[in-house]
Formats: sequence, structure tokens, C-alpha cells
Amino acid sequence: MHLPTLFARRIPAAGSTPGTIAPAPEALPPRISVIRYDTHTLDERRSPDAADALALLRDPAWPVAWVDVQGVGDRHLLEQFGRELGLHRLLVADIGNVGQRAKVEDYDDVLFVVVRMTTIEESGRVRSEQVSVVVGDRWVVSFQETYGDCLDPLRDRIRSGRQMLRAGGSGYLAVMMIDAIVDGYFPVLERVGDELEEIEAEVISQSGSRTALGRVYRIKRELMMLRRSTWPLRDALSHLLRDGHPLLSPEVRPYLRDAADHAMQVVDVLETYRELASSFVDVHLSMAANRTNEIMRVLTIIATIFIPLTFLAGVYGMNFDTRHAANMPELGWRYGYVAFWLVSLAVGAGLLFIFRQLGWLTRRARSEAPDDE
Amino acid sequence: MHLPTLFARRIPAAGSTPGTIAPAPEALPPRISVIRYDTHTLDERRSPDAADALALLRDPAWPVAWVDVQGVGDRHLLEQFGRELGLHRLLVADIGNVGQRAKVEDYDDVLFVVVRMTTIEESGRVRSEQVSVVVGDRWVVSFQETYGDCLDPLRDRIRSGRQMLRAGGSGYLAVMMIDAIVDGYFPVLERVGDELEEIEAEVISQSGSRTALGRVYRIKRELMMLRRSTWPLRDALSHLLRDGHPLLSPEVRPYLRDAADHAMQVVDVLETYRELASSFVDVHLSMAANRTNEIMRVLTIIATIFIPLTFLAGVYGMNFDTRHAANMPELGWRYGYVAFWLVSLAVGAGLLFIFRQLGWLTRRARSEAPDDE
Amino acid sequence: MHLPTLFARRIPAAGSTPGTIAPAPEALPPRISVIRYDTHTLDERRSPDAADALALLRDPAWPVAWVDVQGVGDRHLLEQFGRELGLHRLLVADIGNVGQRAKVEDYDDVLFVVVRMTTIEESGRVRSEQVSVVVGDRWVVSFQETYGDCLDPLRDRIRSGRQMLRAGGSGYLAVMMIDAIVDGYFPVLERVGDELEEIEAEVISQSGSRTALGRVYRIKRELMMLRRSTWPLRDALSHLLRDGHPLLSPEVRPYLRDAADHAMQVVDVLETYRELASSFVDVHLSMAANRTNEIMRVLTIIATIFIPLTFLAGVYGMNFDTRHAANMPELGWRYGYVAFWLVSLAVGAGLLFIFRQLGWLTRRARSEAPDDE
Amino acid sequence: MHLPTLFARRIPAAGSTPGTIAPAPEALPPRISVIRYDTHTLDERRSPDAADALALLRDPAWPVAWVDVQGVGDRHLLEQFGRELGLHRLLVADIGNVGQRAKVEDYDDVLFVVVRMTTIEESGRVRSEQVSVVVGDRWVVSFQETYGDCLDPLRDRIRSGRQMLRAGGSGYLAVMMIDAIVDGYFPVLERVGDELEEIEAEVISQSGSRTALGRVYRIKRELMMLRRSTWPLRDALSHLLRDGHPLLSPEVRPYLRDAADHAMQVVDVLETYRELASSFVDVHLSMAANRTNEIMRVLTIIATIFIPLTFLAGVYGMNFDTRHAANMPELGWRYGYVAFWLVSLAVGAGLLFIFRQLGWLTRRARSEAPDDE
Amino acid sequence: MHLPTLFARRIPAAGSTPGTIAPAPEALPPRISVIRYDTHTLDERRSPDAADALALLRDPAWPVAWVDVQGVGDRHLLEQFGRELGLHRLLVADIGNVGQRAKVEDYDDVLFVVVRMTTIEESGRVRSEQVSVVVGDRWVVSFQETYGDCLDPLRDRIRSGRQMLRAGGSGYLAVMMIDAIVDGYFPVLERVGDELEEIEAEVISQSGSRTALGRVYRIKRELMMLRRSTWPLRDALSHLLRDGHPLLSPEVRPYLRDAADHAMQVVDVLETYRELASSFVDVHLSMAANRTNEIMRVLTIIATIFIPLTFLAGVYGMNFDTRHAANMPELGWRYGYVAFWLVSLAVGAGLLFIFRQLGWLTRRARSEAPDDE
Repeated sequence: MHLPTLFARRIPAAGSTPGTIAPAPEALPPRISVIRYDTHTLDERRSPDAADALALLRDPAWPVAWVDVQGVGDRHLLEQFGRELGLHRLLVADIGNVGQRAKVEDYDDVLFVVVRMTTIEESGRVRSEQVSVVVGDRWVVSFQETYGDCLDPLRDRIRSGRQMLRAGGSGYLAVMMIDAIVDGYFPVLERVGDELEEIEAEVISQSGSRTALGRVYRIKRELMMLRRSTWPLRDALSHLLRDGHPLLSPEVRPYLRDAADHAMQVVDVLETYRELASSFVDVHLSMAANRTNEIMRVLTIIATIFIPLTFLAGVYGMNFDTRHAANMPELGWRYGYVAFWLVSLAVGAGLLFIFRQLGWLTRRARSEAPDDE
Repeated sequence: MHLPTLFARRIPAAGSTPGTIAPAPEALPPRISVIRYDTHTLDERRSPDAADALALLRDPAWPVAWVDVQGVGDRHLLEQFGRELGLHRLLVADIGNVGQRAKVEDYDDVLFVVVRMTTIEESGRVRSEQVSVVVGDRWVVSFQETYGDCLDPLRDRIRSGRQMLRAGGSGYLAVMMIDAIVDGYFPVLERVGDELEEIEAEVISQSGSRTALGRVYRIKRELMMLRRSTWPLRDALSHLLRDGHPLLSPEVRPYLRDAADHAMQVVDVLETYRELASSFVDVHLSMAANRTNEIMRVLTIIATIFIPLTFLAGVYGMNFDTRHAANMPELGWRYGYVAFWLVSLAVGAGLLFIFRQLGWLTRRARSEAPDDE
Repeated sequence: MHLPTLFARRIPAAGSTPGTIAPAPEALPPRISVIRYDTHTLDERRSPDAADALALLRDPAWPVAWVDVQGVGDRHLLEQFGRELGLHRLLVADIGNVGQRAKVEDYDDVLFVVVRMTTIEESGRVRSEQVSVVVGDRWVVSFQETYGDCLDPLRDRIRSGRQMLRAGGSGYLAVMMIDAIVDGYFPVLERVGDELEEIEAEVISQSGSRTALGRVYRIKRELMMLRRSTWPLRDALSHLLRDGHPLLSPEVRPYLRDAADHAMQVVDVLETYRELASSFVDVHLSMAANRTNEIMRVLTIIATIFIPLTFLAGVYGMNFDTRHAANMPELGWRYGYVAFWLVSLAVGAGLLFIFRQLGWLTRRARSEAPDDE
Repeated sequence: MHLPTLFARRIPAAGSTPGTIAPAPEALPPRISVIRYDTHTLDERRSPDAADALALLRDPAWPVAWVDVQGVGDRHLLEQFGRELGLHRLLVADIGNVGQRAKVEDYDDVLFVVVRMTTIEESGRVRSEQVSVVVGDRWVVSFQETYGDCLDPLRDRIRSGRQMLRAGGSGYLAVMMIDAIVDGYFPVLERVGDELEEIEAEVISQSGSRTALGRVYRIKRELMMLRRSTWPLRDALSHLLRDGHPLLSPEVRPYLRDAADHAMQVVDVLETYRELASSFVDVHLSMAANRTNEIMRVLTIIATIFIPLTFLAGVYGMNFDTRHAANMPELGWRYGYVAFWLVSLAVGAGLLFIFRQLGWLTRRARSEAPDDE
Repeated sequence: MHLPTLFARRIPAAGSTPGTIAPAPEALPPRISVIRYDTHTLDERRSPDAADALALLRDPAWPVAWVDVQGVGDRHLLEQFGRELGLHRLLVADIGNVGQRAKVEDYDDVLFVVVRMTTIEESGRVRSEQVSVVVGDRWVVSFQETYGDCLDPLRDRIRSGRQMLRAGGSGYLAVMMIDAIVDGYFPVLERVGDELEEIEAEVISQSGSRTALGRVYRIKRELMMLRRSTWPLRDALSHLLRDGHPLLSPEVRPYLRDAADHAMQVVDVLETYRELASSFVDVHLSMAANRTNEIMRVLTIIATIFIPLTFLAGVYGMNFDTRHAANMPELGWRYGYVAFWLVSLAVGAGLLFIFRQLGWLTRRARSEAPDDE
């Protein structure tokens, strides 16, 4: 199993100038695409270079231009965008130094939004990447950590000419991106929920609860990581909703509220999952304690019955000189052996009776599983 | 046992336009009923189609019209309502995509309230469904997920011509609905409380505490689910109460406060229940630990007494050649056997005395049950 | 032991009109008493009927009139009071449907306060009942769930003509009632504190910790119930103090602050008690784990020494044909038996030495009790 | 060990007038001292009676007069002070009924501060007492529960004529008192910290962890008590700092902030200690569980090897009639005995090998102690 | 292992004047360095004495002067700085009495910031020291507890003539210091994260979980200490960001926000780590419980099979006088011995069958490790 690393922030060397970009060695080279549209027409360019993309962006003919950059491994490209669009150097650094908390920052003329996008990989692993969205009055530039397709459906919707989206301006486009990213948490939650239900079935059935321990741990860890992504996201969206921004027109607000609402729902579900996963540990410990008792009881019953009897058998196996009348006269009795067995049976039966009184003979393990009703 | 699924939100395909309605396949076809009333007269229609219902709704002759739609499985009907009443597409989507958090949204001319209604099914299961209430100036449209009867008593009260209700306007009607839904939590709490008391009796009595484990888990899970419904409900009502809304006249406020108050009470009780259920796990673990000790003590006492004696008996069962005087002279003693028994009894009595000093012989298990005073 | 029921709210049938009063079947028939006073004179009436009481209340000759109603089992009486005093129907319903959270509601001309009073019954049980106080400009009406005497000292103080109280107006009288009720929590806390100290002594002494388990649970449950009463009380008083009310003159404020302060103290003490009770469970589990180790060690020492020796004794009890020289030649040795004992002693001593090295022979159980210093 | 009693509030009889003073029987008779000073001169009186002290206090010749009353056991003296200085009766009652939460109350012309002072007794016990400070425009009256010396250093500083203090007015003097009292918590924290480190050493070393249990409990309890004193203190000082008071001039504010800052630090440290003490319990439980495993493993290894062998020895000790060829022919074999030993050794070696595979033979207990690196 | 001491605050004697500086005996003698710069020129002095440094500081020719004092062991030097720069005595005391919480204090003309810097020592230990920054309109004075190099990179950047920094004023310089110190937490977090992953690997692999216990404890303790540093830091920066300060120009704000953002990230990561470390304890306990069961099962299987058989063998080893026909006739049977073995095998096989039914024979320990999928 490959657990995600705990600490994934890109750290420029301590003491370096704030605003220094230090891309990870494994950061991908950027791929750019541009879409420009108004209500009626659409202009789409694939893989222009940065200069072309910026030129397209600044063309005043289009009410909205969206430049999407996938891969943030090229420091110079980021700086070029920053320079040309007049972005603050800290803003540009936050784009390049992935691993930021979700946040919304208001730089007067532009709105800067960082969110973490979550996707499930082929292998079933949950992957989290940073998406940075810079919103200007007539343009949006988005930066994704990897070559993803999370925003593809949005692109399709633009192409298909949906009225609202095409008429909506840059603020609306940005909110649509955020919304798409927030909604990307739901399939992850669904998968985690499914796994929790499997684990639950395993934990609460007597048989399987031991293999479940590792799974519980894994899922708890995954939930911790998800939580670290979602709480700041929720807070950032709530603040943006409360404080508003000139680029977000009143018509856009309900869509932002919708996205914030979904983020809240994600957090709610995560918290419930966390609590559930915690309760699995309790159940597991209780089950283990019960099993210990079960096992101990069997051992104790057997040992308590046979240990005294074995002693008795040992006694009559002693070799005292029976020529002395006081030595083991029982051995010479006519029914000594029969008496021995009778005593043995009496002792055994007596002990069993006592154990029954103590309730030790009732096997109650099965009834413990929660699905017994 | 059928545990409710953990994740129950309807998710439109990721990246689809916000406002897309994706009814669950199992969503029910809508059934519409209309009630219109003023202080003196009442007009009730059963099962009109959507167009008729909307026409009835818009008839300016009645001060209040209530359209109740049960079953939200028909996307087109929802869109028709949205279009005709000028509702925001996100509002309409929230109605169709059930599984929303409780919330209150203010769309200037209409007030939109989502609450989760809880009912106990015949089978004893707790079921939770979404009820969406859209309040206009002269009308209320409510959407329920299933064919329910939770609002039937309210309908009866309208029919029976209660002064206040009939004179109250659309805001009052909406608050009455919310109040009825909040009050629907109390029977659920009562049942959960009863079950907790049963489990408590089982847990704290020595005998039954093992079958209780599964029940404790089940109830904890149920409480988690209930909690996920009630906290947002409480918050939403508190906010509505604090911020007010033009559709809610000052006369209606006390009723809203009453409903908010009840929601707070529900949350209070739930939190106490959660704490109680958690303490059961502690008690269970402590009891199991005590039982382990109890069993171990019995085993240890028996084994500690008889194992040395068995060794001694084994010794005198050895076949050393007694012709050598140094070999097992005890066997030839006149009272060797008697001496053996005396030694055995002395050892046993001595160990019992020691165990008594250690307090191991006192049986304290019974006194552990809390009802022993 | 009779644990208090977990869910004690009176629930009118779901869907009934808000404001419906549904007295519990066991609710007591009301007993009314009236006291009217000014600085110099006092007029007291016992057991008037409702109509008389209301007439007395409205008599403008007295600056303050206090009607105390004990027992809220008569729906019609409550409605009569509501009607005559112009009280909101929800207010009246809250009086009749006992089991409300503590709250303060401002109905413009009247102030409505619900608090929960706690008393210790003869049997030692903690009982909690609802007291509703309606404050008008010249009168106070209080409703108690049972025939209690918690407000009797207050009545005595009025009779004895204390300057301040007699001159204080209805707001002051109401605050005095709240103060008396809040102070009623202190004896309960004192008793709970005493019991916690007893349990503490039991838990931390090795001997008694098992009977303590049930007591710990009981007290935790009692603390949960008390907590459910006190937190809302504290919040309600804080809000009233912060927001003020026309009926509470500036002179009365310090007394209200005093009561709120006491409520805060009650909550503080309760929280400390809760934490203490929780730590008992930890101590108990740790002690049980220690005891298990103690017992296991005794068993293991005994068994580890004697099981190998018993095997050896068994070996020399075998009946191999000693006519073959290779079969058990030891049996024929002159000092075989002596050698056997020497080997046995050596093995036993060796194992004891090893156990001493492991620290298993030191008995440390006693030193565990916290009072060993 | 003498644990401090849990509930230490003085409670006047329930229902008594608010403002009733009920000194504890063990409350000490008051001792009064008076210091008056201006920048240049100082007048000090020891043990005047109350009337004299009040006369000195009111003498307009001195800019600041400080009356210190140690021991609050004399109700009449408190009432005399209250009457002469025009103090609210509730204020006076809070002085006499010790056991109040820390608080700051603003009575227009006077500022009333209650704080809890913590000192370590000779015996090492932590003692907490109430100090009430009443601040007027030209005077300060302080009331201490016991004859203490916590404010002596402050008195010395006044005597030694420190510029700032002598020029500072009553507000500054009061803040200096609060500061001295808050700083009195640090030696207590230091001692608790030392003890925690001792316990830590004991808990994490394998050998001592059992005697540590009681100590952990004791320290947890002490921390709970300290916490109950410090949180309200922190809150009260924060509020006073935020809201200000006419008696506290701008020059005094930084000193108040300093005191509030220290209170915050005390709370921070306490919370860390609490968490640490809690983690000790976890470590202890884990260690106990490990020890149980250790012991069980020894027992199981020994028993599993020798129990089958003992059976085998028992078999060849049976007395079947060997005249029948089928009965125990092994006994007659030439190398039967040798074969027996070979089988025994093989079984033993085989089991040891298996145990080694299971990792049961490695002793890992030592490496568990945290200082093994 | 040397754990950091829990309580590390310098405490002046209780009751001493607020503002008293009590340097620790081990506090280092100060080393001063001065850097002055404008956009084009730079003046740097090493090791001037205090008087020189102050003279350099006050020289109006330079827009920004930075005096860095490493080592705060010289009380007189601190007082000299305080006197000459007109600093409040409490401010000066906070510099000298290291061990303060992080805080921001606004003294009108100067801004005073205390932060805790964290570094990893050669030995791998985390060390935390206080850095105090006093910001004037044209100068910054920083005081470090030890001779550190955390601010060296900043000094290099000044030297290298970075435009922004050189043009930035004293406020910008101060924010850069804070930023450098906050960023110093990331390498510490990274190391802690690495260690947590090692421990995780150890805990969740069956074999190593016992040595991990001490490591888990150590890391929990380290996290507690880090937490005590970071929460106040986060709060202080948030407040400064919210309230602003005249010395922090609008251009500086984004940099402060950046630093505050990083502080928030540090806190986020720490909280996740804490939760992770706590879950290790649960996993460890569960694993120990499983291992106990595993071991017990082996013991119980072996003992339950052989104890009865040993009894049987003991029986036929008894020496009853077989001349009486009733005494042990089995011994005389032709196939008695064979029958004995058959019975033994039947008993053993029967018990094994039962154990198999109970699921006790399946070894499930391996599958428990989380990487089994």
C-alpha cells in the first residue's frame, strides 16, 4: 500500500525572498489552452505558447477569455504571466509553490482563488492537487498541477453554447470552476462511504474484525488528509460569499452560494465519517476483549476440571510401600477404582454446575454481531 | 439488520451545469394536491396536473394557496413550476436533487426552505426525507420526497377552519409546516431514548453486556445520522429567526421562535444521547476487563494449588530403584502416604490463605451491577 | 436503582396546532396562592380559585401582586390565565407542556422566563422540574410543576417585610425567584461532589474498584442530565443580562448578574465533575490491566517452574523395561533420586532467578494506590 | 494524601436573601493594615480597628490609601466596610462568601475584582484562596481569605518608594495586586511541571509504570482544580482589558495587559500539562497490554512445550498388562527410553522453531522504553 | 533521550515590580550587528557596542536601520536600548524574560512583535527560541535568544540589493523577519512528518509495534510543545493583519498576509499530525489485544487437548490392586493400550474439529498488517 506522504508542501529554501517560486522537480511542463467566447461565437486555441496566450487574453474583442495552464513546472512562464497581467509576486509564487491551503485573496483588480481538487486515480488512490484561479475583469487564468480533465465538462458546456454560461462574464466562469471542483469531492466521498460500509460489515461480524484493523487505520488517515483540504475550502468560500467582490455580480452570487453549500455538505459528511471510523476502533477493542474472555473461559473450564483430577490420578500412581497398612489402603479396596471414577465424575459435574451458575457455559459470541435481530 | 447507507446525496455527473436536476431512478412520480383558503371559505383539489395546479395557485381571488407535491421524480414538472413561478434554477435543482442539508435561502421575492423530515417506518427504521418549501407572497409550494402524511394533520387543521391558521398568510403556513416537521423528531428521539434505556439495562447487568455491543454500535450510527440532519436545521432556523424575512410578519415570529426552540431541544437531547452511548462503550470495556480478571483468578487459584501437588504426586510415582537406600526412602515409611496428604493439605491451605490475603477469594462480580444499592 | 428516564418532554400529537397544551396524565391539579404587598402592607390569600386570583392580580391598589400556581395539570386554568392576562398562546403552551429548555422570551409587555429547578428528593434522587415565570408590570405569575417549597423562603422574606424586596417591583421579585432556583443547584452539586469523593476513594484503592464501576456510570449519567438543565439556563441568563428588559430596572441588574454568575459557577463545577468522572474510567481500566498482569504473573511463575519438573517426574515414572541397559539407567543409580531433587531445585532456583531479573517477583500492587506517599 | 475537597463554595441557606453573608466556621478573624502614600511620603498603620481604618481611608490628604484585610470571618466588619464605603450588598456578600469565580464587576464608582490566588503550602499541597479587591478613586481595599504574604513584596515596593508605583494612583495599585497574584501561579506551574517530568520518567521506564498510576491521577485532579481557577481569571482580565474602566488610566493599561498576558500563558501551560497527563494514561495502558503479552508468551511457550511431553511421559507410565503383546510394546524395546528422549527433544525443538518463526522468542520489552535511542 | 523541559519561562521573583528583567544564568552575552540601507547604498557594521549601535540607529541619513542583538543575557544593555529608544519598561522586560507567548503589541510609536523561532539542532532535537522585534518608523531592532543564523538569509538578501526589500521601509523589513521565522517551521514539520511515517510503518507492521510506543510518546510530546508555540503565533499574526498598524503600509500587507497564511498552514499540519499520533496509540492497543488473543488461543488449544489426555494417562498409571476384578480391568485387556490411543486420538481430533468450527485454527495475524491488499 502506498500511503500519501504526510507533508507535501513545496518549501523554498528558508529565508528566501517571499515570492520565490520553487517548483518541485517532478512538476510538469505547462500545456496551455485558450477559449474565448461571447454569447454567440466561440474561439478555441490549443497549445499556444505563453506569449500567444497572453495576446489572445488581452484582445478586447471578446467579453470573456479563459486561459487554462496545466502543469506549473515552468517558473519562467509563471513569471511571464505575472508580469504581463500585473499580478502580485506573492500571488504568482502561490501558483508555483503548490501545496497551499484553499484561500481567496482580493488583489483589488484581480480575485485570486486557490482550491484543492480531489480525484480518484485508476488505482483507487485519492489524489489531491492545487488549482489556482486568477480572475480579471474580462479574463480568467487557471493553473492546474497536473494534466487533468476535471474542468473538461465545463469546457464542453461552454462549447455547447449554454446561454447562461456564455453570457455570464469572467466572475461566473470562475464560480463555475470552483463549483466543478467542489463537486469533484462527492465521488470521493461516495467511494470512502462504500469502503466504510465494507469495513463496518467486517468489523461487526465476529470473524473478520482483525483484518479490518489496517483498513480502519488507512481510511482514518485518508479522512484526515481530506479534512485538511476541505475545511479551508469551506471557510474560504464562506468568506468570499459574505464579503463579496466586484467581479462577482449579484447574478453570480446564488451560484457561489451553491458551491459554498456543497463545500459545507462535504465537510458534514467527512465529519460523520471520521466519527464512524473512530467508533470502529472502539468496537474492535471491545470485540477483542470479548474474544479474550471467550478463549480464557474455555481454557479455565478445561483446566479447572482436569487439573485436580490429574492430581488425584497422580496420587494413586504413587509407589508408597503398601505393605504398611497406612499407605494407600485405597489401592487395595475392592471397588477403589470404581470409587475413583465416581469421585472424578462428581468433581467434574460439580465444577460444571458451578460454571453454569456463573454463566460461563453459555456461548454468547454469535449473538454479539449486530445483525442478529 | 439494514443499516441506512452512509452516503445518500443525489449527485449529477461531475462538471454538469449547476442547476441540473438528476432525480434518482427510485424517485417517485409526483402527486399534487391544492388547498386554497381565506378566513371563511376553503377550496381543495386533489390530483390536478401541474398546469392546473399552477393556474389555481395564481388565481388572485384567494389570499393563500398551498400546492403540495409529493414525489420529486419528474424533472419536467419541477422545471415547469420553476419557470412559471420565476424560481431560480438552483432553487429548482435543490428540490430535485434530494439529500441537501437543511437551509434557508432568501431569493428576494420568494423564501426557500429545505428541511429534513424524520419518521419511523413500520419496521422501526428511522427514515429521513427532504422537504422543500417555497414561499411566495400569496402561496406556498411544498415538495416532499415520498408520499408522506406528515403534513396531513396540518391540512386537517386548515380544513377545520382554525381561526389563526386561516387568517395567517403564506408565511404563517410555511412556519406551521416547519414546526410540524421539527416536531416529527420528538417521537424519533423518544424511541431512541427507549432503546438506549434498554441497552443501558443490558450493559450494566453483568449477564447481557455482550449482546449489547452490536446494539450500542447501531444506535451510535443512528445518532450520527440524526445529528447530520439536525445541526444544519437548528442553524438554519436560528439564522432565519435572527435575520427575519419580509414574508414573515411580526405575528408569525413567535411561532418561528417556537420551532427554532424545538430544534434546539432536539439537538440538546441528541448530544446527551451521544454522550450516553459513548459511555456504554467504556462501561463495556471495563466490564470485560473485570470479567477477564475474574476468570483468570479462578484459573490461577486452581492451577497454583494443584500444579505443585501434581508434581509431588508425580515424584512419588517415580520408579527409582528403592533397593538403594537413598532412593525415595519416603516410599518405605510407615506413614509416608499420610504425610503426603498432610503436606498436600498444608500446601493447599497455605496457598488459599495467601490468596485470601490478596483478596482473590472474594467474589465481587455481582456487586458490580449498578443496581445493587 | 431508578435512573431518571432519558426523555421527559411532553409531546402533543405531531402536527397539532402550535400552542396546544397536552398536560401529562400524572400532572398535578393546580393549587393557587396570592401575595400582594407594598412597602408597608401585605395581603396574602391561600387557595383562591383562578377567577379570584386573577381579580386580585388586577386590583390596581397594590404595586406588586404575585400569584403562584403549583401543578399545571389543568389545561383550562392555564388557558384562563392566558386569556385574562393577554398572554401569547405559545407562552401558555410552554407553561403546560413541561420539559422545556430554560429560556427567556420577551413578549413586549411581559417577560417570560422558563427555568429548571433541581431538588434532592428524600430518597436521594435528583429531581428536576420546570418553573415558568411570567412577569408583568405590576404582577408576577409563577407556575411550578409540583407542589414544591423552593420558593417558600422567598415568601417568608416577603412576609418578614425586608425593605428592599418589598420596595422592589415585579422585576425584582422575578429575579429573586430565578436567584432562589439557581441557588438550589448548589446543594445538588455538593451532594454529587461528596459522592464523587467517595467513588474516588473506592476507585483508587485497589480493593474496591470493581463495585465502583456502576457508581461511576450512575454519576456520569446524573451529570449529563444536570448539564442538559444548566447550560441553557446559563445562556438564557447571560442573554437576559446582556439585552436587558424594560421590566428590569437598573437597580435590579446587579441581582440578575449575581444569579447569572451563580449559574456560571454551577456550569464550571459540573464540567470539572464530568472530567473527574471520566478520569475514573481510565483509572479503573488501568487498574484492571494491572491486576490482570499481577494474576497472570503468579500463574506464569508457578506454571513455568512446576510444569517442566512435573514432566521430569513423569519421565521417571515411566515403565520402560529396565532390563535393557539403555532404558532409564538413572533409576538404578545409587543417588538417582537425590540427583532428581537437585536438578529440580536447580531448575526452580534458576527460573526464580530469571523471574527476579525480569522484575516479576516484586509485588508492586500495593504501592499503586495513590495514598502511598 | 489529602486531596483538596471538590466543592468548596460557601453556600448561604437556599432561598436566603441575595447578599446574605455566611462566613465558613473556619473563616479567620480579620487583621487590618493600612498604607497611605504619595510620591514623597508614606504612612503605615498596623492593626487598626475597622472604624479607624475607614477614617484613615477617607482622609483626603493622601492620594492613595490601601487597606488590606486578611481574614473574612467577621460578617459585621464586612458590612461596616460596605456601609461606610457605599458598596453594593452583593459586592460585600461576594467578599464574605469565598469560593467565587474570578470576575470583574463595574459598580460605576468602584471597580470590584475577585481573583483566586494560588500558593504552595509547606506540605507541597497547592492551596487556592479568594482575594477580593475593591478599587475606589483614591483608595483600594483588599480582602484575603487567609493571613497570607503574597502581597507583602508589593508592600515592600511601596515602602521602598519606587517612583512609578508611588505616583500611580489607586488603579495602578490594584493592577499591581492582580499582577502579583497572577505571577503567583508560575511557581505552582513550575512545581507541577517538575512532577510531570518525574512521572513521565516513571511511566516510560518499563519498571516503574505501576506506581505512577496514582500519581498521574493526583496530578490530573490538581490540574482540573487549577483550571477551574485560571480560565475565569483569564476571561475576566481579557474583558477588563477590552472594556477598560475610568479608574484605569491609559498609563496603567500596559500593566493590565501584561497581567492578562501572563494569565493567558498560565492557561496555555495548564492545557499542555493536561494533555500530557492524559497521554500518560494511554502509555500506561499500552505498556500494561505489552506486559500482559510478554507474560502470556512465556507461559504459553513453556506450557506448549511441556504439556504434550508430560502426556507422553504419562503414557509410558501406564500399567497396561504388557503380557499382551499389543500393550505398550515400546516399553520392551531396547532403545525405547532413548527414543522417548529423542522424540521429546524433537517436539521441543520443533515448537521452539515455530515460536521463533512467530517472533515470540525475541525479547523486545527493553527496547520499548523511549530512551533507547 | 533528552526531552525538552516542560516549563521554560523565566520567572522574576514573585511580587517583583512588573518590568523587572531576570535573565537566565545561561543567557548569552549580546552580540550586536547593524545594517543600514537605502535603495542604492548599504552600510554594515559588525559588533559595535550598544552606544555605537544606538547612534547608528538614530542617524537620520538612512531610511532604514536594522540593529540585530543576539543574546539577551545583559540586563543593562536591554535597559540602555529601552531608555534611548523610549521603549516601555514592560516591553523591555518581555525581551529579557524569554519564554513569552508569541504576541503583537502596539505601543503607539513602536510596534512590538514577539515570535518563537524553531530550528532543528545538529542532534536532531527541535529547539525553540524567542525572537523579539521592535519596529520604529525608521528602524528595526531584533533580539534573538541565541547566536542564530535564521535571519542570515534575510541579511544576504539586503546585501544583494533586492529592489523591493531595499525600498521597503522598516515595516517591510519587520514583516520579512516574521516571514523568515514562520517559514522556519516548515523544515521542522517536514522532519516530524518523516518520523511519523517511520513510526507508522513500525506500528502497522505486526513485528515492530512495541518499540514504537516510546517513539509515539516522544513525538506526541514534541507536537504539544510545537503547538504551544504556533497557536499564539497564528493568532497574533491574524490580529495584526486584521487591525493593521501605521508602520505597515498597504504594500506590506500582502506580505504579512502571506506570513499569516503560512502560520495557518503550520497549525493545520500540526493538528493533522497530532491526530495521526493519537491514532497510533489506538492501533497499538488494538494490535496488542489481537496478539494477546493469538497467544491465548495457542495456549488454550494445546492445553485443552492435552490436559484431559494427560489425566487419562494418569488414570492408567494408577496402582489399584488389579487382583480385584473391578479395579482397572482395562489394564488387562488385550487391546487396552491400542484402545487408549484410539480414544486419545479421537478426543484430540474432536477438539481440533471444534476449534476449527470456532475459527480458532485460522491464523489471521499476518493479514492484519495494512499493506496486505
